[in-house]
Amino acid sequence: MSWSAVEVIRRKRDGEQLPGDAVRWVVDGFTRGAVAPEQMSALLMAVFHHGLSPAELAAWTDAMVASGRRLDLSAVGRPVVDKHSSGGVGDKVSLVVAPLVASFGLAVPKLSGRGLGHTGGTLDKLESIPGWTGALSGERFLTQLRDVGAVIAAAGDDLAPADKLLYALRDVTATVESLPLIASSIMSKKIAGGADAVLLDVKVGTGAFMPTVEAARELAETMVGLGAAHGVRTVALLTSMDAPLGRAVGNALEVAEALEVLEGGGPADLVQVCLAVATQMLALGGRADVDPAAALHDGSALALWRRMVQAQDGDPDAPLPRAPHTEVVAAERAGFLGRLDARAVGTAAWRLGAGRARKEDAVSASAGVRCLVRPGEAVQPGTPLLELHAEDPARLADGLAALAGCYDVVDEPGPTRPLVLEQVGDSSA
Amino acid sequence: MSWSAVEVIRRKRDGEQLPGDAVRWVVDGFTRGAVAPEQMSALLMAVFHHGLSPAELAAWTDAMVASGRRLDLSAVGRPVVDKHSSGGVGDKVSLVVAPLVASFGLAVPKLSGRGLGHTGGTLDKLESIPGWTGALSGERFLTQLRDVGAVIAAAGDDLAPADKLLYALRDVTATVESLPLIASSIMSKKIAGGADAVLLDVKVGTGAFMPTVEAARELAETMVGLGAAHGVRTVALLTSMDAPLGRAVGNALEVAEALEVLEGGGPADLVQVCLAVATQMLALGGRADVDPAAALHDGSALALWRRMVQAQDGDPDAPLPRAPHTEVVAAERAGFLGRLDARAVGTAAWRLGAGRARKEDAVSASAGVRCLVRPGEAVQPGTPLLELHAEDPARLADGLAALAGCYDVVDEPGPTRPLVLEQVGDSSA
Repeated sequence: MSWSAVEVIRRKRDGEQLPGDAVRWVVDGFTRGAVAPEQMSALLMAVFHHGLSPAELAAWTDAMVASGRRLDLSAVGRPVVDKHSSGGVGDKVSLVVAPLVASFGLAVPKLSGRGLGHTGGTLDKLESIPGWTGALSGERFLTQLRDVGAVIAAAGDDLAPADKLLYALRDVTATVESLPLIASSIMSKKIAGGADAVLLDVKVGTGAFMPTVEAARELAETMVGLGAAHGVRTVALLTSMDAPLGRAVGNALEVAEALEVLEGGGPADLVQVCLAVATQMLALGGRADVDPAAALHDGSALALWRRMVQAQDGDPDAPLPRAPHTEVVAAERAGFLGRLDARAVGTAAWRLGAGRARKEDAVSASAGVRCLVRPGEAVQPGTPLLELHAEDPARLADGLAALAGCYDVVDEPGPTRPLVLEQVGDSSA
Repeated sequence: MSWSAVEVIRRKRDGEQLPGDAVRWVVDGFTRGAVAPEQMSALLMAVFHHGLSPAELAAWTDAMVASGRRLDLSAVGRPVVDKHSSGGVGDKVSLVVAPLVASFGLAVPKLSGRGLGHTGGTLDKLESIPGWTGALSGERFLTQLRDVGAVIAAAGDDLAPADKLLYALRDVTATVESLPLIASSIMSKKIAGGADAVLLDVKVGTGAFMPTVEAARELAETMVGLGAAHGVRTVALLTSMDAPLGRAVGNALEVAEALEVLEGGGPADLVQVCLAVATQMLALGGRADVDPAAALHDGSALALWRRMVQAQDGDPDAPLPRAPHTEVVAAERAGFLGRLDARAVGTAAWRLGAGRARKEDAVSASAGVRCLVRPGEAVQPGTPLLELHAEDPARLADGLAALAGCYDVVDEPGPTRPLVLEQVGDSSA
């Protein structure tokens, strides 16, 4: 059935429920160019104000999935469990859990993007490994998934291409921050990606897209429902993102820290989130019986990491790039580190060269920030708190400026909220 | 100061007040092509949901006026009073009041449009007079305004060109029905038109754009405030548009009826609205001392009509075109005409050929509907109620279909609401 774009916009504008075929028609029409960008942007703004009902959202997501191909991973011969993070500062969890979960026989087909703004991108991080490539053909992707189990690669343009068009439009029309549009953007790509199950790590806090638990919970529930509606078992964890995760923020710095965890060490907060995520992914893949921590201590996760890196032309033994210029921010008084603002640290790493303002910008592999002290730890006057790394010394001043007011030192360590806040959905179902 | 379009959209989206320079920047940027249509349409939808404050609306209208030139009519040497109607069925008031008011020495520079949909356009009506043209050069327009006093002409593209661009965008993005956008669209053109004062006839009822008195009052108050903010004294009358105004709907049919009024006759309801409008226009022009009804009876308004028509190449003595095909709808039972739906009659006239569905369509001069009986009048079985006129006999069936259910015959004449409902603003100020 053919609709009128004006009529579809008017109904949503007036808060009416759109029939599923109207939703599918308008998303499909926009993707094909039959619905003009100015019409879609008016509709997106109306959706921002009125939301989408579960039925509308399911149809919207359907149409986005149907705009491209849906991968068939049945030939992989393993349970396929994907993972997505809503984006945080210092979030290198994928680097750990992909090989960790694959070391138990599951397949993890992680299609990733690049970083934009204050959060880093998984591809940018892995590209700091000499030789490594995320640009894999479909055949190579499938072969590695079957033989190694873990793949982290660049998403192709053929999965949910409507999302790319819609996101570009949302970006210039102030319609990014709409819960159903965020949910459909994430889930359309995950559904098209062909996994049997998906673990969503929804970050909450000052450094995350979702500032409150309530908003994060609503997003998580919406995405878990969308996954279920499309036959993809989905579980979400709400995890804290007030301070950076771990101590390292920046591409090579984060790879190095992920390796520490894969070698059985690493910062406790990062290990805790990695194990919580891995536990759910294993349960979704039918391996609730195993202990992921064991694979971090017996070398099996690290061995799989090496195979994964090598399969993508990377040299796991090559030294990671190190920045030639560093600068330290030290404590001015004694006490305990209180707040350490994740967004400010992420922005500092970006300004130091680790991130990009525009898609086409290059990033520095070695730039970033190391958080030498974590919230709750004691400091003395002169204790080094933050270590800035840059390839270009001129960037150190920008990084320092971005860190202004990013932490405080308090007399008593305050209460910290748990790292893993809530779970939405059931991995044993 | 330069703004970011995304930031302007975001603030309005979140219900914040926009600074005046942000409003001016975005309207100007859209007109120049620096703000993309998809950004403006998202902003328009946000304005639809949150409205515009008086300060925002004044800046918005300012920017629309500033997008073109503002006429300087100081050389006319008479008080200049413009008139605008929000559009109704059978609304030929401008044809009467322009010469009527000018016959008392005022200047009435009426820039008009063409009809679209169920309401007719003043230019279409006057073009049924053999020879008449509404396409005047600026010099000819000014000369006629000075020498004759009344001009009804086509609006040029140089007055508030932003309005034309914005209206085209609103039309395809379901953002037409926004009160501040309607008010700024009307008032930007009136302000740019250069009059000292403006009388607004805001139609209320089933045949009008504003269905309720409350909505019409809010629109009127908004426009009166906008006029005052730009130094244009503005008064609005809210007038009833449940039934067609007068008995004639259609181009030549309406010119003939306007002539009846100018000759001292015509339907009482039409005469009443014309006199109410003329009284306010005269007061706005400093002639509260005169009685407009006198000019209808002593031939001075008719004499000015003839001069106005001749000045625009029209022959006031030429017979008006008459449709070769007519059909009559008769009453089926005795009683009183109750409801006569203005929108249905307007749509019937349009289908018969008097109106157009698209801008580029031609209209028939002679097609239309004559309402032989008005609400409240007694009828017998067989009394002719409506007379359909068409050049193309195939259109009679379409006209009849549009009239289905457009009237009812009742046992007792019901109460009718006054024609002139309210006045907003003060013409003696």
